[in-house]
Amino acid sequence: MFINNKNLLSGTMDQLKECCGVFGIFGDSKAAEKTYLGLYALQHRGQESAGIAASNGKAITLYKDMGLVCTVFSNPDILSGLKGSSAIGHNRYSTTGLSGLINAQPILIQFKGGQIAAAHNGNLVNALQLRKLMEEDGSIFQTTSDSEIVLHLIARSKKSSIEDMVIDALNRIEGAYCFIFLTPSKLIAVRDPYGFRPLCLGKDGNSHIVASESCALDIIDAQYIRSIDPGEVLIIDRNGIQSKQLPQKRRRAFCIFEYIYFSRPDSMIFGEKVDKTRRKLGKKLAEESPCEADIVIAVPDSANTAALGYAQASGIRFEIGLIRNHYIGRTFIDPDQNERDLDVKIKFNPVTGVLRGKRIVVVEDSIVRGTTLKKLVRLLRTAGAAEIHVRVSSPPVKFPCFYGIDISSRGELIASSSDVESICKHIGADSLAYLSVEGMLDAVPERKLHCTACFTGNYPTAVPENFCKEQFSAI
Amino acid sequence: MFINNKNLLSGTMDQLKECCGVFGIFGDSKAAEKTYLGLYALQHRGQESAGIAASNGKAITLYKDMGLVCTVFSNPDILSGLKGSSAIGHNRYSTTGLSGLINAQPILIQFKGGQIAAAHNGNLVNALQLRKLMEEDGSIFQTTSDSEIVLHLIARSKKSSIEDMVIDALNRIEGAYCFIFLTPSKLIAVRDPYGFRPLCLGKDGNSHIVASESCALDIIDAQYIRSIDPGEVLIIDRNGIQSKQLPQKRRRAFCIFEYIYFSRPDSMIFGEKVDKTRRKLGKKLAEESPCEADIVIAVPDSANTAALGYAQASGIRFEIGLIRNHYIGRTFIDPDQNERDLDVKIKFNPVTGVLRGKRIVVVEDSIVRGTTLKKLVRLLRTAGAAEIHVRVSSPPVKFPCFYGIDISSRGELIASSSDVESICKHIGADSLAYLSVEGMLDAVPERKLHCTACFTGNYPTAVPENFCKEQFSAI
Amino acid sequence: MFINNKNLLSGTMDQLKECCGVFGIFGDSKAAEKTYLGLYALQHRGQESAGIAASNGKAITLYKDMGLVCTVFSNPDILSGLKGSSAIGHNRYSTTGLSGLINAQPILIQFKGGQIAAAHNGNLVNALQLRKLMEEDGSIFQTTSDSEIVLHLIARSKKSSIEDMVIDALNRIEGAYCFIFLTPSKLIAVRDPYGFRPLCLGKDGNSHIVASESCALDIIDAQYIRSIDPGEVLIIDRNGIQSKQLPQKRRRAFCIFEYIYFSRPDSMIFGEKVDKTRRKLGKKLAEESPCEADIVIAVPDSANTAALGYAQASGIRFEIGLIRNHYIGRTFIDPDQNERDLDVKIKFNPVTGVLRGKRIVVVEDSIVRGTTLKKLVRLLRTAGAAEIHVRVSSPPVKFPCFYGIDISSRGELIASSSDVESICKHIGADSLAYLSVEGMLDAVPERKLHCTACFTGNYPTAVPENFCKEQFSAI
Amino acid sequence: MFINNKNLLSGTMDQLKECCGVFGIFGDSKAAEKTYLGLYALQHRGQESAGIAASNGKAITLYKDMGLVCTVFSNPDILSGLKGSSAIGHNRYSTTGLSGLINAQPILIQFKGGQIAAAHNGNLVNALQLRKLMEEDGSIFQTTSDSEIVLHLIARSKKSSIEDMVIDALNRIEGAYCFIFLTPSKLIAVRDPYGFRPLCLGKDGNSHIVASESCALDIIDAQYIRSIDPGEVLIIDRNGIQSKQLPQKRRRAFCIFEYIYFSRPDSMIFGEKVDKTRRKLGKKLAEESPCEADIVIAVPDSANTAALGYAQASGIRFEIGLIRNHYIGRTFIDPDQNERDLDVKIKFNPVTGVLRGKRIVVVEDSIVRGTTLKKLVRLLRTAGAAEIHVRVSSPPVKFPCFYGIDISSRGELIASSSDVESICKHIGADSLAYLSVEGMLDAVPERKLHCTACFTGNYPTAVPENFCKEQFSAI
Repeated sequence: MFINNKNLLSGTMDQLKECCGVFGIFGDSKAAEKTYLGLYALQHRGQESAGIAASNGKAITLYKDMGLVCTVFSNPDILSGLKGSSAIGHNRYSTTGLSGLINAQPILIQFKGGQIAAAHNGNLVNALQLRKLMEEDGSIFQTTSDSEIVLHLIARSKKSSIEDMVIDALNRIEGAYCFIFLTPSKLIAVRDPYGFRPLCLGKDGNSHIVASESCALDIIDAQYIRSIDPGEVLIIDRNGIQSKQLPQKRRRAFCIFEYIYFSRPDSMIFGEKVDKTRRKLGKKLAEESPCEADIVIAVPDSANTAALGYAQASGIRFEIGLIRNHYIGRTFIDPDQNERDLDVKIKFNPVTGVLRGKRIVVVEDSIVRGTTLKKLVRLLRTAGAAEIHVRVSSPPVKFPCFYGIDISSRGELIASSSDVESICKHIGADSLAYLSVEGMLDAVPERKLHCTACFTGNYPTAVPENFCKEQFSAI
Repeated sequence: MFINNKNLLSGTMDQLKECCGVFGIFGDSKAAEKTYLGLYALQHRGQESAGIAASNGKAITLYKDMGLVCTVFSNPDILSGLKGSSAIGHNRYSTTGLSGLINAQPILIQFKGGQIAAAHNGNLVNALQLRKLMEEDGSIFQTTSDSEIVLHLIARSKKSSIEDMVIDALNRIEGAYCFIFLTPSKLIAVRDPYGFRPLCLGKDGNSHIVASESCALDIIDAQYIRSIDPGEVLIIDRNGIQSKQLPQKRRRAFCIFEYIYFSRPDSMIFGEKVDKTRRKLGKKLAEESPCEADIVIAVPDSANTAALGYAQASGIRFEIGLIRNHYIGRTFIDPDQNERDLDVKIKFNPVTGVLRGKRIVVVEDSIVRGTTLKKLVRLLRTAGAAEIHVRVSSPPVKFPCFYGIDISSRGELIASSSDVESICKHIGADSLAYLSVEGMLDAVPERKLHCTACFTGNYPTAVPENFCKEQFSAI
Repeated sequence: MFINNKNLLSGTMDQLKECCGVFGIFGDSKAAEKTYLGLYALQHRGQESAGIAASNGKAITLYKDMGLVCTVFSNPDILSGLKGSSAIGHNRYSTTGLSGLINAQPILIQFKGGQIAAAHNGNLVNALQLRKLMEEDGSIFQTTSDSEIVLHLIARSKKSSIEDMVIDALNRIEGAYCFIFLTPSKLIAVRDPYGFRPLCLGKDGNSHIVASESCALDIIDAQYIRSIDPGEVLIIDRNGIQSKQLPQKRRRAFCIFEYIYFSRPDSMIFGEKVDKTRRKLGKKLAEESPCEADIVIAVPDSANTAALGYAQASGIRFEIGLIRNHYIGRTFIDPDQNERDLDVKIKFNPVTGVLRGKRIVVVEDSIVRGTTLKKLVRLLRTAGAAEIHVRVSSPPVKFPCFYGIDISSRGELIASSSDVESICKHIGADSLAYLSVEGMLDAVPERKLHCTACFTGNYPTAVPENFCKEQFSAI
Repeated sequence: MFINNKNLLSGTMDQLKECCGVFGIFGDSKAAEKTYLGLYALQHRGQESAGIAASNGKAITLYKDMGLVCTVFSNPDILSGLKGSSAIGHNRYSTTGLSGLINAQPILIQFKGGQIAAAHNGNLVNALQLRKLMEEDGSIFQTTSDSEIVLHLIARSKKSSIEDMVIDALNRIEGAYCFIFLTPSKLIAVRDPYGFRPLCLGKDGNSHIVASESCALDIIDAQYIRSIDPGEVLIIDRNGIQSKQLPQKRRRAFCIFEYIYFSRPDSMIFGEKVDKTRRKLGKKLAEESPCEADIVIAVPDSANTAALGYAQASGIRFEIGLIRNHYIGRTFIDPDQNERDLDVKIKFNPVTGVLRGKRIVVVEDSIVRGTTLKKLVRLLRTAGAAEIHVRVSSPPVKFPCFYGIDISSRGELIASSSDVESICKHIGADSLAYLSVEGMLDAVPERKLHCTACFTGNYPTAVPENFCKEQFSAI
């Protein structure tokens, strides 16, 4: 592992971001195996590293490494070595060069309360401040992960029970987080009071499960119970499950991007089916921005559902005009810019027979930098498309996310500096339309519960100090 | 590498089968890199091993290993070590336990004519006879691949030029084959006189390319010229391209399964677009076996196009009811039975919101053993489907293939011993219908050019000795 | 990596022990490469993991992994990625199951003073107390290494300069340690006031080097300057080298086992040549315990020098009666008991022609559990030895070491429960004699400077709480 | 694996050379495990690749890979997968760039007689002629190993039994060879009629063992029976052991270099103990070339025994003045020239305390290129040696070996172009003396049985065509 943790301080905020999948299970004799399957189902949330910590009631064992779940746990001895009836797991992807095993999760520490392991999805907005404060007070940091900060806070708490120590720590952090903690005898799951990231509760016989998305429950045949409430702290031990509540925030801020892109369509998040909402986005888009065209195609696979919605609402036939190569990773989450550009052609194969001579509506879920779409449009033209009308099932992404989704700040958001017309020209489409913010909010169950900051700049929390919104709102 | 080549003799014919992707390029300064990209595009034809042999005009260098193209050639030094302006490449998948590096291709040998490398797609029906004959005559065999047999025949030819030696050898073999040979100064590509497997010719400036499917031309921006004719031998060297013809067979036998399942939908094979034919199969199926239903879904990804055809012809809405996990391989081509059964649930994620309470048409491209479909039907029921009507875009597979597609003979073909009603019951569907042979043939450009043996038992060639058709035609 | 850091608390003291090699260089354009070579020379001090941290004056980069130096740094890109003119390196071996990458060194942290990396050789006797104190005070621990404890202490220091913070921290620790710290702009090397472990200073042009043994200076053609004094703190930066002194202890305690076994014979430690002292041990042994015999052989390679001394003093011919297999590791430092027992036969090959019919003196450097020697005696008998007289160039090891050498406490010290006669019987020798403590002390330069605790139970420091000397001094 | 088998033809003879270790066992339920141990003991004969073929009476299974025995067979599943009661094994080292898995042994083929595997130690002098002849006759070659040639010859034999086919093949080859063949039901071991390479027979209960050196018998506690005779063919099957004899050659030609350097000192070869002969070489050297000196040291480890002999005969004290680093390979057999030069300093650590101010006799077993010795002399001077007198326990190596030892022909033999005085000057010693040919022959049991070609140019066989002895005998 290469570590240059000077990046801890010199990096910009977005270097600390990560979006991940978390899973936890308590009271199951196959805890590690089910966590493995859960991580398999959550693989789309992070492909850089994977790890599982398991407890046999007395001690915690941890295994983690770089790579996909199936690679990290390819040796069956590893899973069988993770003994015990409770376990937590984590899939991570890095959004910067600051990756490496040192930042893989779960993190396992020893403190005055014994052992505790933590898995985190999200991003704290006061991470640097807390880190500086604690450094001033004599703390040392071995990783750049927010989890380490929270573990420090837990260890410094004067409370006596572990759940109180955890709550004490959580009261000091601000931002987006779902944490799953594992001690030798307890599993503690928490979702931040804004509710940025999804976290749900499931059940299978006497065992309790928590996971980022419900698809991780489905794969182990567990029953979906409910979404964990914003600010809810679940303490699960042999006595059962107990719920506590962190102080309320003035608002909720469910990440609307989870519906648009990040979650799996067959999942339930925030208490709602992803595919249902995603399809509504497509329908709304068709209503707002109709198009004279012969066929509707999706940029596979993330825009498939929205494209079906668009086709349904518009009455234009849905077609599969682009085939994805299954033997490579997912564009959005590749850490390296160069590879992202290089690989578009390898990833998408245009079906000439479908496209030739056709007026095409191409539905995409979102545009970040526009690079991929530009190349795709060129690809579709080469394949004989007569007209290419791009329809985006979300509004223009204009502002960086501080809550865990890698929408970068470094001038890479094409919509932060260009208007729709310019973007259309840039990508070479015949027309381009985004879904409106209003239209987007119409598609989600309760509009005011959601965070739309990346589209609107309305951040639900204080934002990191050096961030200047104006530089992004030129248009 | 584990080798138990006793299997050479004791195995049944199907143990010698393999379906693969081949690629060749002559006259390009980036020969190895383009071969690498070509293999990337042909990855769906074989995931077990990959290899490239390159010639600098004087000597041939070879690199091959087990794994996906991106894994085998992950070290950039390897590609840059494959110097020269001509190269051939091969993706292999094994259909039996008889795998291992020893059988990876290309094979490179030294013989009286110098060096020659060979890459093969297909399956010889007289392989065992030839092997026995040559063994009687003192030959030794180090692999179980058909390529080694042909290389022996070439080396034993009394002809003087390499092209005549190759033709001499080809005249002795019978069955399905596309071969690409590379000598230090020539590239020779050949498609068998029946034309079982696809092979096309492309061009990019002064360089010539041959590939199993046209998608391998697209990825390197080469121009598709034409399908190589059955029995055609192309000799490409610095003087250009020359075509010779092997003796005609009484009929043609293009593998219709390439349209149904094996080829990529964006490819051109046998001079026709795959997606066009595949869609027709779906339409025919809708005409022949309509259904009262709410939605049409595909078993992704191979049945997507046929499902679109079915939806279009039937007027029933196409939906995405199953999501595929991208982080694992393709069911049909996994070598191990156990893993095939184990993984269905990991591979397919039902979208409850789409399926719940719906009467569903599930379009699948083919049924071999029925195991996967049985589990899928169960999965769909659990997800709330009201009715499940399975429609298969090909006829019942009743007979083994001796021409390179792994439709196994070991009693695993459910349709060889069960009628449609029993199969329907076995898989647990509410109704089941296959496309008729007539319907299938209506969908392909020229019906009589195709091999339908796996459906009809009408083998275009003599079949291996011990094969008894009757045992398969019980119904 | 497998981590079960519950061992942090439940383990006995010896589980925290480690003996290692450390190296540091400042002011050399090839800092990382020379550190690599230095670690190569110190490989005998630890084979479990290796790591290098390098500074370019602004930031520190770290690379570490499990394995031998030559394996960990087998990719040349790694060394070239460790840029800068100062570097520290570490070889580690684990004496318990508590191994894994998490404990590999150097450790790199971020604290209020910026970055600091640490490499440690030795063992703190108040590690658990300090850890508990700091845990009570809210610290978290991610490893079981003493280095992490010291880094915590440094970070908690209220001093302003890094050197004062380090000294502040060192004033709180007790036990055996050589530390090399690296900050972006300084290298700080320290040897504990007792002087348990060796550490020497070298010079090469304008660059300064510190290393566990002088053999690491030789390999990079650096000049040996002197042994670093007990309690000396060297601060090396661009302004040169500065020496500070920790408070004196009432005595010195150079580890006499470094002479007996651990250091390389061509090294200089504690200001004295190892081979010179080791040879004297052999001579003393011959004087104290002469023997009627035909030849003297060594248990290679560690007892070679003592055997030569014995041969020289006794006038009995030195012979090579056992050949070591070079393709496996070193017995004493293998972490797993089972392998230790299994491999004796693979490791040592008796030369029958030398041994047959001979009365043999077998010189061994020390006896810990007696297992290996028992098997060796059996091996020598099988090879035809007429008589086998074992002579040990150190006294009976009766007490555990708390200062970094893995002489285990768990009843494995055969001499702690058996007298010489019983041991002789146990190993099956015709006679057995150990060197006396007096004889041993005669061989070292200054007898009272050395720690002899493992032989005498006279611990120079307070010992860990739960240790009861009486249980070891039965005889 | 990288293969450029153009080298098959373009290479000079020495590119086909290899010296290796072979092992075979018949009738033992732990055949593969014992072969593994046997290869462990023979590891010094080849470190590039290792392989085992095992037969269960019906079929042969093979596993081989690049690397040391302990690495290749590190996964216990591999050994347990090699089922059956007979097995053969092979350690290989390559003397040229022409290495790679393709040339690893054993080779397993299928031919008219079924399966046969072969392991070979030695070098055929008519390999190229045979290969050309067989190529003309239509054979193909996939490796550059002599074994493939012999397997072709076996397959082409018209005899009916496998033993007769083997003998038929052996009658056509000329040169140095020990072959062990394994068929499903038989093990056939053969030593060439000159007897170049050692091969011995052992017994353990009802199982028979053959091995390059007796140390491979010792490690499995098998009993040494005898050396296999030159030209003897042993056929071992369930009916017992049978011996046949190949036609006699006019002379014997046991490789004297096996005594000087290659074999392990604890081995028995050619019916004699290696250490006994090697010690005599040292004594003879002392008699022929005495020296006024203080100590005798060896270049470890290969010259240890000769140095002991020199010390004993001269009365000068034996000392260990150079320590070998155990964590790297053996100089003589590293394939790459650059590394050979680079690593001398890493490999040998001078013990200053032993050397300073002393007049030293350095005993080396042989000088090939002189490069290592030159660096060693420099190293010893730096360590303070007052005088350095090099004594070589073999005569000057002036001629290439065509029988399997890598004494290269490419002008690298310093003694083929320089006289002793020049070499002494070149390496920087105060004096240099070689053992005379007569002295060497006095040390071996029967002088006229041995091959001394590398010293004398008296080749026992015809030599390869293009070899001109005169170019080597300038002096």
